[in-house]
Amino acid sequence: MPDLLSEKFAALADPTRRAMLSRLSKGEANVSELAKPFLKGMSLPAVTKHLKVLERAGLITKTREAQWRPCKLNGDGFKDVAEWMELYRTYWEESLDRLDVYLKTVMAKKKAAAKTTAKGKKDGRKS
Amino acid sequence: MPDLLSEKFAALADPTRRAMLSRLSKGEANVSELAKPFLKGMSLPAVTKHLKVLERAGLITKTREAQWRPCKLNGDGFKDVAEWMELYRTYWEESLDRLDVYLKTVMAKKKAAAKTTAKGKKDGRKS
Repeated sequence: MPDLLSEKFAALADPTRRAMLSRLSKGEANVSELAKPFLKGMSLPAVTKHLKVLERAGLITKTREAQWRPCKLNGDGFKDVAEWMELYRTYWEESLDRLDVYLKTVMAKKKAAAKTTAKGKKDGRKS
Repeated sequence: MPDLLSEKFAALADPTRRAMLSRLSKGEANVSELAKPFLKGMSLPAVTKHLKVLERAGLITKTREAQWRPCKLNGDGFKDVAEWMELYRTYWEESLDRLDVYLKTVMAKKKAAAKTTAKGKKDGRKS
């Protein structure tokens, strides 16, 4: 049996399941509504299986009582994944900072080059 | 072939691999240093396989040139995972807010109860 955090990461390791979460981030939906965009490429049991993976991982909840049985995102379920990611924030932010520095250098070089060209043209006109 | 984001989430869906990342967050290490804490429970090829999964997912890099071949965290590799998680921030923060409200209510009730008890005791002493 995998630990719950591993189960969550495994649940997120699939584009169909991430698309389902994206749909649910816009509001509750029942199984047939959720299934609709995927039924061209997969069977209803396959869709249901994906939903079960998300539900077992605690990322969505399904209301058992109502006949309509809407699914919804379970914010609590995302917390430990977010907390784990938080431990590595310095690493990805550092790389964003590096990108920022790089972009600034490129822009500064571009600006300097443009200035030189403009000056050259001006000097050219003078002579 | 899974998409890279799925590959990253899949790479994170394992406690051994997360422990390896945690070790690397403290600084570079070579394969044998990284393997050491896991060799009681698994073989060196199994450890190497885990490292390959992390490397293929872009979460670590291995210096190919140096004889020492240290592994290190690849901050860039965490960015798209972090960006994806960011989309769901409102959901997990909302649940943290709810927890906060709940804790405050519990604490307020506890305080009120303690006050009533104290008052009761005081009144008891008076009569």
